[in-house]
Amino acid sequence: LFQLEMEADALVNFQHYSSQLPPFYESSCHILHVEVLQQLTDLIRNHPSWSVAHLAVELGIRECFHHSRIISCANNRENEEGCTPLHLACRKGDGEILVELVQYCHAQMDVTDNNGETAFHYAVQGDNAQVLQLLGKNASAGLNRVNNQGQTPLHLACQMGKQEMVRVLLLCNARCNVMGSAGYPIHAAMKFSHKGCAEMIISMDSNQIHSKDPRYGASPLHWAKTAEMARMLLKRGCDVNNTSSSGNTALHVAVMRNRFDCVMVLLTYGANADARGEHGNTPLHLAMSKDNVEMIKALIVFGAEVDTPNDFGETPAFIASKISKLVTRKTLLTLLRTVGADYRLPVTQGPPSEQCSSTTHHSFSLERSQPPPISLNNLELQDIVHISRSRKPAFILSSMRDEKRTHDHLLCLDGGGVKGLVIIQLLIAIEKASGVATKDLFDWVAGTSTGGILALAILHSKSMAYMRGVYFRMKDEVFRGSRPYESGPLEEFLKREFGEHTKMTDVKKPKVMLTGTLSDRQPAELHLFRNYEAPESVREPRFSQNINLKPPTQPSEQLVWRAARSSGAAPTYFRPNGRFLDGGLLANNPTLDAMTEIHEYNQDMIRKGQESKVKKLSIVVSLGTGRSPQVPVTCVDVFRPSNPWELAKTVFGAKELGKMVVDCCTDPDGRAVDRARAWCEMVGIQYFRLNPQLGTDIMLDEINDTVLVNALWETEVYIHEHREQFQKLIQLLLAP
Amino acid sequence: LFQLEMEADALVNFQHYSSQLPPFYESSCHILHVEVLQQLTDLIRNHPSWSVAHLAVELGIRECFHHSRIISCANNRENEEGCTPLHLACRKGDGEILVELVQYCHAQMDVTDNNGETAFHYAVQGDNAQVLQLLGKNASAGLNRVNNQGQTPLHLACQMGKQEMVRVLLLCNARCNVMGSAGYPIHAAMKFSHKGCAEMIISMDSNQIHSKDPRYGASPLHWAKTAEMARMLLKRGCDVNNTSSSGNTALHVAVMRNRFDCVMVLLTYGANADARGEHGNTPLHLAMSKDNVEMIKALIVFGAEVDTPNDFGETPAFIASKISKLVTRKTLLTLLRTVGADYRLPVTQGPPSEQCSSTTHHSFSLERSQPPPISLNNLELQDIVHISRSRKPAFILSSMRDEKRTHDHLLCLDGGGVKGLVIIQLLIAIEKASGVATKDLFDWVAGTSTGGILALAILHSKSMAYMRGVYFRMKDEVFRGSRPYESGPLEEFLKREFGEHTKMTDVKKPKVMLTGTLSDRQPAELHLFRNYEAPESVREPRFSQNINLKPPTQPSEQLVWRAARSSGAAPTYFRPNGRFLDGGLLANNPTLDAMTEIHEYNQDMIRKGQESKVKKLSIVVSLGTGRSPQVPVTCVDVFRPSNPWELAKTVFGAKELGKMVVDCCTDPDGRAVDRARAWCEMVGIQYFRLNPQLGTDIMLDEINDTVLVNALWETEVYIHEHREQFQKLIQLLLAP
Repeated sequence: LFQLEMEADALVNFQHYSSQLPPFYESSCHILHVEVLQQLTDLIRNHPSWSVAHLAVELGIRECFHHSRIISCANNRENEEGCTPLHLACRKGDGEILVELVQYCHAQMDVTDNNGETAFHYAVQGDNAQVLQLLGKNASAGLNRVNNQGQTPLHLACQMGKQEMVRVLLLCNARCNVMGSAGYPIHAAMKFSHKGCAEMIISMDSNQIHSKDPRYGASPLHWAKTAEMARMLLKRGCDVNNTSSSGNTALHVAVMRNRFDCVMVLLTYGANADARGEHGNTPLHLAMSKDNVEMIKALIVFGAEVDTPNDFGETPAFIASKISKLVTRKTLLTLLRTVGADYRLPVTQGPPSEQCSSTTHHSFSLERSQPPPISLNNLELQDIVHISRSRKPAFILSSMRDEKRTHDHLLCLDGGGVKGLVIIQLLIAIEKASGVATKDLFDWVAGTSTGGILALAILHSKSMAYMRGVYFRMKDEVFRGSRPYESGPLEEFLKREFGEHTKMTDVKKPKVMLTGTLSDRQPAELHLFRNYEAPESVREPRFSQNINLKPPTQPSEQLVWRAARSSGAAPTYFRPNGRFLDGGLLANNPTLDAMTEIHEYNQDMIRKGQESKVKKLSIVVSLGTGRSPQVPVTCVDVFRPSNPWELAKTVFGAKELGKMVVDCCTDPDGRAVDRARAWCEMVGIQYFRLNPQLGTDIMLDEINDTVLVNALWETEVYIHEHREQFQKLIQLLLAP
Repeated sequence: LFQLEMEADALVNFQHYSSQLPPFYESSCHILHVEVLQQLTDLIRNHPSWSVAHLAVELGIRECFHHSRIISCANNRENEEGCTPLHLACRKGDGEILVELVQYCHAQMDVTDNNGETAFHYAVQGDNAQVLQLLGKNASAGLNRVNNQGQTPLHLACQMGKQEMVRVLLLCNARCNVMGSAGYPIHAAMKFSHKGCAEMIISMDSNQIHSKDPRYGASPLHWAKTAEMARMLLKRGCDVNNTSSSGNTALHVAVMRNRFDCVMVLLTYGANADARGEHGNTPLHLAMSKDNVEMIKALIVFGAEVDTPNDFGETPAFIASKISKLVTRKTLLTLLRTVGADYRLPVTQGPPSEQCSSTTHHSFSLERSQPPPISLNNLELQDIVHISRSRKPAFILSSMRDEKRTHDHLLCLDGGGVKGLVIIQLLIAIEKASGVATKDLFDWVAGTSTGGILALAILHSKSMAYMRGVYFRMKDEVFRGSRPYESGPLEEFLKREFGEHTKMTDVKKPKVMLTGTLSDRQPAELHLFRNYEAPESVREPRFSQNINLKPPTQPSEQLVWRAARSSGAAPTYFRPNGRFLDGGLLANNPTLDAMTEIHEYNQDMIRKGQESKVKKLSIVVSLGTGRSPQVPVTCVDVFRPSNPWELAKTVFGAKELGKMVVDCCTDPDGRAVDRARAWCEMVGIQYFRLNPQLGTDIMLDEINDTVLVNALWETEVYIHEHREQFQKLIQLLLAP
């Protein structure tokens, strides 16, 4: 068993052992094996302060617990940890022993150890949820007891991420609303990014989604460290702009922690990119020190103003100008300048040290050496001063109804899949500059594919900022897997946004048309989904009436979501919607067809004697989804090969040719724009084509946040570079 | 050897044999074998009138010919056929025997047999051209001797189609211009459709291509029985409208003989479909009795007037109305009516029998029972009387220069491969109705692909009737084999028609633009080949200047044929021309781009202070290459298959989808037309879209004459049905 060096030690040990061993001898039906004895003596040596009950738990022999001496020690906590045998059993996860302790020994479940932890705390830290279940069968105050660290068993389970434990605790009616030292259990789950635990708590008590922690007054969303955790809360309806005690939103925290993915989720769920937090800092102020260009771009494209001063009168650019690392400083200043950042001298001409110290008031330290004070003569600062404040609207007008206008305005939105985000960004800029919602700026809206969806969003008064968030959120679901994608997510999205039973004519203004391609015939024909009656055609029918082809659905019967689905049925991306394919096959840029339709509509009105209702078209605004960079093509040659090398070349040529044909068919820029411009100029219509040049070729089904944020960034740069054109457009749109 | 029944016969035979056999015994170095004897006796029995020289020739033993008795019989013709041994040798084709006869026996070559045939005639009928060659080494009158049927050896060779014989005869200077009873040798070659013989004769004596036969005064072309024979002559420059003694052209003959393929060749080489022949009949008159709808259609679409009276005042419709077979009669009358045939009462109110007998004056009998006289109250006739004479121009104006016009006219020509024939037919109708050449009716001409080629043809003053013939003739060469076709024939054609070194700016009026697709970049760009300087662009360049992309050639340096080649480089039909593909990928209907170009051109002129030169566009004429019938499409679905049936379905769907995308890309009808019409109406421009509905889908590379004639026929019907529109168009085009 073991060997001793000194006789005196042997004597002491003998006395100790002779008092500990008998209950095991006496309660056993058999002679104890040498192995059991060895284990027993080891335990005694290692835990000299344990009672025989503790030893029995560790040994795991059930018969022991009927012995009177062990029973008498059932609640003994006179040991180093101050834990009872029940604590040990719970930690060990031995359900049988636990039953013996509770039933025969009458062990109490609310006894705490030196850390203030009950058996429930120990069970949570074990591996067997069944133990917890057994404990929970009897109501006990120990279930919600707070330990010395200020944690209930639920806190502990959430922190450790033990979903099964959380589930059992909740089933035993453990309270979610016990305030711990760091907040409620959900805060622990969030802090340690245990999604399942958080979800269960919210399911049990939905109020927990808004709960504040005691130290920072922060909501669970503030504590989210990952995109997934944030998304989980937001999907369940938590307030994305909830503020902590210091006035910071979750976005502030995510920026300070340099969590780009979290930032994206918050922004796409409607976080206010311009929210003023502690010391009046916006997230952009905080982002300046993170050296994360992606995050800065994301904040700006989602609406962060680049020249908002904080409580010290510092703008983000000013803060950037104080960054000690030269490369970073120049990068950030250049970045801000490209979108029209303005330099404003601090309101308070305080000493630099005070300005520098402003950020140290943040609840989280910058953990970075302070940049040295720099002269106000810094070149960048001098340059910035002269940049115009083009991104501020010169005036704000109240909403105008189209009845006051003497001429019609037409808005045309190209197709382009997820690149519809570019259109959204352009529309947000127009709305911001004009102070008027898109719906009230235009009398006609034409859209193809993603442009069609946005046209319907405008018709149904959805804000473009909201649509921007939705696009970012939906893209991962809509474009999941490989092509062709399941239609389910897209259709669910459309039904949710527009209603499952909404008809096209339910909302009549502005007039909206979506392009679709009738693909049940060759040649295919363009079909317009309208929220008004189609103009009657007076010209001879192009084809003799084909009795076998079904006529289209009337606008008053046409479901909105189905029209959107049809317009966006891009071949090989989604399956056709019945007989409809994406309108982009015939009119990816719908301007020419919209003008044709308006002309025919007006002619029809005149023929019906309603000439007084006819208004001339005066403005056409055509928004693109971004122009891909032009690249050289080396070979579109398709020929009969005479050797293997030529075979490879002709196969490559055929592939390139196929791509070129699709491009020629669906290019919304190029000829369509030249034709529309010439048409408008001939007729005396003001024509605006807004289509940013993108730096990379972005696919219709792109889902990478960084790529998309960059596209929006390039759109913002485009808007700034063309600010004069924008201002002219706004003036024209607002003129009576 | 043989057996005789009667002793008396034996005695007679003995005497005969004893006089014939010795020369063979005496001239032989060996004992004659039994086989030789057998052959010899057989010959003697079969040809009792032959001399020993004839026997020697047939026997083929050379030594015989040194025998004095044989030599003395060398020119003996005292036999049933009256032929000499030389005749036999020639027919047999035995060159060695021939040499013996000529050199040792001094056989004469100009001796004739009972049919008046010389040895040359016999040689021609043999199988060995070498014999003829040997004969020809010595000049002899027999070479050109006419036999009793009025044939020289050359006539005979041509009739029999023995090309090698003809070649040798011509090398021996046989005369091509010996008049036989049926004409010159070439007439015989033509009559029996021996192309090679005819070709050799024409190569030897090119005047033969115009030679007339003595009986009908017909040229070789009249005698052509097949398309191939006719084409051969026409390619060598014979006069397609040459008339015979009775005034008939080759077309009259081909129609009378019901040779559709010949008719097509003649028409495509410029035969006058309205030529008046014997009794003033046009080919259409003659066609009425042939019950060949195809041929009738072909004549009409190539310009035959349906209401031309003959010398008896009969129109083709009148003749058709007298056909006794009711079904045929109704068919033909309906056919004629659809293109505006007019009924004219005969000028001479003669008795019906005289009218009926008019056709019997033809040189070829109708070989059909005469239809019974019918009442003038026949319904068809009554109906026809009221049909307007829409195909006759109401007025003929002299040529107008565009300087007199105050507004510009634009002509736009779609692409469509060989279907450009439809455009040609439409233009011919416009020219006929207006009395003015297309070139002088329009100030701007825009074309794509086949429309581009026609635009250049207009620019270079080629008549549309000529182009129609060229298209029919070239299609079999240009579209030979399978796709992609060799570019050689097309390029040769373009160089021949437009000149190998002609530049675009060599002819400046009217202004012409051809569309092409710059395919060395993605996205591809539209390029216009112009015969004027391009307008300067004031808008921002669409893409940053890509230094690697070569700028286009200037109009003053651009070769015309190369521009045409580029515009027509339809992918998978022809290989790209350098970096250019068919303009149809971006602008198969060039109207919108032409209007854009004109607008930009005018803006450029205004900017350069030449506003006085700017003319407003007042008329746009857009000609299509025929509209294919619309057909239902069952499946364009492309999805991930989960079983073999679905795999088959998705493959089919992918194929249909690909076809649909190409159609959407290149459809010149449909949206392009609606857009152009709306644009023109908005601006106050008269817009005419002329595009016949075709009954079948015709491919770009169709080469079947019947199919193409039918397409042109449908175009003629379309022209008649839309005659009011045509008249309005003509009036507008001719108005100052």
